Amino acid sequence: MTDEKKLTPQSEDYAAWYNEVVMRAELADYAPVRGCMVVRPYGTALWENVQQALDRRFKETGHQNALFPLLIPMSFLQKEAKHVEGFAPELAVVTHGGGKELEEPLVVRPTSETVIGHMYAKWIRSYRDLPILINQWGNVVRWEMRTRLFLRTLEFYWQEGHTAHATFEEAQEETLRMLNIYADFAINDAAIPVVTGRKSKTERFAGADASYSIEAMMGNKWALQAGTSHNLGQNFARAFNIQYLDQNNELQYCWTTSWGLSTRMIGGIIMVHGDDQGLKLPPKLAPYQVVIVPIWRKEGQKTAVLEATERVRAALSGRFRVMVDARKEFTPGWKFNEWELRGVPLRIEIGPRDVEQESVILARRDVPGKAGKNSAPMAGLADAVGDLLEVIQADLLAAATAFRDANIHETKDYEELGKIAADGWAKAYWCGDDACEAKIKKDTKATNRNIPLNQENAGPGSCVVCGKPAQEWAYWARAY
Amino acid sequence: MTDEKKLTPQSEDYAAWYNEVVMRAELADYAPVRGCMVVRPYGTALWENVQQALDRRFKETGHQNALFPLLIPMSFLQKEAKHVEGFAPELAVVTHGGGKELEEPLVVRPTSETVIGHMYAKWIRSYRDLPILINQWGNVVRWEMRTRLFLRTLEFYWQEGHTAHATFEEAQEETLRMLNIYADFAINDAAIPVVTGRKSKTERFAGADASYSIEAMMGNKWALQAGTSHNLGQNFARAFNIQYLDQNNELQYCWTTSWGLSTRMIGGIIMVHGDDQGLKLPPKLAPYQVVIVPIWRKEGQKTAVLEATERVRAALSGRFRVMVDARKEFTPGWKFNEWELRGVPLRIEIGPRDVEQESVILARRDVPGKAGKNSAPMAGLADAVGDLLEVIQADLLAAATAFRDANIHETKDYEELGKIAADGWAKAYWCGDDACEAKIKKDTKATNRNIPLNQENAGPGSCVVCGKPAQEWAYWARAY
Repeated sequence: MTDEKKLTPQSEDYAAWYNEVVMRAELADYAPVRGCMVVRPYGTALWENVQQALDRRFKETGHQNALFPLLIPMSFLQKEAKHVEGFAPELAVVTHGGGKELEEPLVVRPTSETVIGHMYAKWIRSYRDLPILINQWGNVVRWEMRTRLFLRTLEFYWQEGHTAHATFEEAQEETLRMLNIYADFAINDAAIPVVTGRKSKTERFAGADASYSIEAMMGNKWALQAGTSHNLGQNFARAFNIQYLDQNNELQYCWTTSWGLSTRMIGGIIMVHGDDQGLKLPPKLAPYQVVIVPIWRKEGQKTAVLEATERVRAALSGRFRVMVDARKEFTPGWKFNEWELRGVPLRIEIGPRDVEQESVILARRDVPGKAGKNSAPMAGLADAVGDLLEVIQADLLAAATAFRDANIHETKDYEELGKIAADGWAKAYWCGDDACEAKIKKDTKATNRNIPLNQENAGPGSCVVCGKPAQEWAYWARAY
Repeated sequence: MTDEKKLTPQSEDYAAWYNEVVMRAELADYAPVRGCMVVRPYGTALWENVQQALDRRFKETGHQNALFPLLIPMSFLQKEAKHVEGFAPELAVVTHGGGKELEEPLVVRPTSETVIGHMYAKWIRSYRDLPILINQWGNVVRWEMRTRLFLRTLEFYWQEGHTAHATFEEAQEETLRMLNIYADFAINDAAIPVVTGRKSKTERFAGADASYSIEAMMGNKWALQAGTSHNLGQNFARAFNIQYLDQNNELQYCWTTSWGLSTRMIGGIIMVHGDDQGLKLPPKLAPYQVVIVPIWRKEGQKTAVLEATERVRAALSGRFRVMVDARKEFTPGWKFNEWELRGVPLRIEIGPRDVEQESVILARRDVPGKAGKNSAPMAGLADAVGDLLEVIQADLLAAATAFRDANIHETKDYEELGKIAADGWAKAYWCGDDACEAKIKKDTKATNRNIPLNQENAGPGSCVVCGKPAQEWAYWARAY
């Protein structure tokens, strides 16, 4: 049960607002082990909708799911030099099993390139076996120091795709295909306008030749990396001997990719759309798209109102995810607040007058107050609700896009970059040098979010730090 | 790729047959860590169909999914005396995280009663919060010594339901409701005729007041416990302080249940239906319900055959899970064997003569040779295929039921019990004494499978071991 206390306003303390929303909307809770979380039923239903929306896209593009083991021999991690360097500090290590000390410690997977590479080496014989297009839904553990529900937890849930190809070109095509699938999902289902781009060398996945990300702007103007896709080149193929006989019967190393999107996305949905009243969930992903609140004052009105509520529920429930809140112990006003906090896109109010008029009140979560309320006839209500949910979905995306665009500023001036990045995203040319990137981070706390794939036909420019010639510009922002 | 070598016949070496089927049908493979498995795409698709069939039933009965943490403080296990006694020998223990030794070791969950109990204690305040009906899909680890793909692996995949109630009666009702849901799924979706019953005291879940199971007879007449449901009484409620204020404002302990079904069920499906040709998958769960094999000898026939194949695929694919095998590198005969090995319920052959006659050949996996083959017109094929898949589903259940019933024998004689249990299930009265149960196990290797809920109105009898009065009979069999 949430209590009646108001949420801390976003403008007062954004981090406090975030934690309160997560806890009071019953999306998640703290587990007993530091940094671990419990995803509660409401959060799990939201995640399951994310999973379905992605899984459908993966299968449409020829991917199959599989399940690889949780426990990986420590020695596997060490086979790819950069990989172990990146992940060693974050490992959870199993040293005892069945009451005995193990001969070789096992790590709880932080990601599965190594063990999947090992299996691919076993399965792949010839070019006929390629490409292998596999995805896994599961949990991973990374021993993070500073944790935050959904955004960074020791254990998190995600999907990790792992593919093997005969050529560099095919692997690169796959890497970008999956990046674009993440963007398509984020934009069209989560109503989050993301930017697709290449990560800088220092922000690459440990063991990748190139990493790409989708980046989203949160309500406090920080950036969130919400999904990544990596071209792993032949690094893991060489480390794990993933080879195939080509059409000339010669042994070649495969080219592999990996790509992942996690429960972090839930944090993004909360922070992109949420306001001081709580969550605003996009209709395509909301666990409940519609909540019906029956309202009566006198006991004599109750039967007619509940009967109409049941008729409306029956008319909608085949097509939409509907919740009826007919609890007696709470007032209608309390319920309105509760379901606004929990972000249900559309509320239907049914009172005695509505029953008489064979109509209902539709109240949009995304448009506050009277402006968001309309009366609609019960006849043909399902179509009206369907149309309205589409409008809400589109309006959430439009609002997030307008907010993002208003808070991105281009600059050629290093001083100005610092000011912009303190309260928005800076768009600035960069020469590609690690030192210039590091200087920006040190001076402004802003990191290179990515180098957008769409450079908007901009020509060459000069690095905002050192002034040397620069071919590309990047986004710079504070980030989670 | 499977090779052309025949499977070891079941009659020659049942265990070898089982492993070969699992590997060559590409259901699963061995992971690098001893006792762990990789569930390959075909096995994962089968498991996903099991998951959907169960998840639908769970949700229809008011359950919601949630995600609890993988890592549990060691001290939690110790709070319930019998629970720790049962699970301590099987634990995988994380002692290091982020490069440091942990202050308290963490166990990788072997099951989640403890950590879920801890959370329920936090969430439950009053009788209004009850019942809590939550299910979790996930992975668990138990350090088993003798492992076998799907049947017993260190890590396995399952669902574990955990509920909390105000009264014993409600908890008991839930325990049996979920047992019956498992039975309904097994019988109607997996085509496995299971027996529902109570486990003996010695076979109870560690920490339960009563455990119930569904038991199935495999092709070698051994039993497989394929799902369990436990009434945990107030044991975990007392250990974790799961309390609620009742309507008189008095603090009461909750009554809890847990119930689980795992990837072990896949092993059951393999062994109940499989034969010397390989798998036979029930249509409701098969990853592919129909495989279409186009056949041509002369290059000139190819276009017309492939065109007809595409028409048939298009006509069926909205309604059924269809695979087209048009690979050039394999002969039709090789493909027939391959898809028989992989258990696809129905094969459709389309050759030049079929194209001329606007018909196809339907070949049932469950009826060998010519008896299982029929010609069917392309017009109205989807309905014919739908009807035939229903017949196959029903016939698989009927065959498994007939086999089971032919191999259960009732006895009042202890000598005879040993002979029956060597090659079937014995049905015999038992006084309920641990010593009599232990004697049977020692003498015959048969264990008490369960004490069926349906005692078929049998009256009292005498214990098959000691001859003392017995109220109930049980099944006794060798088991996995």
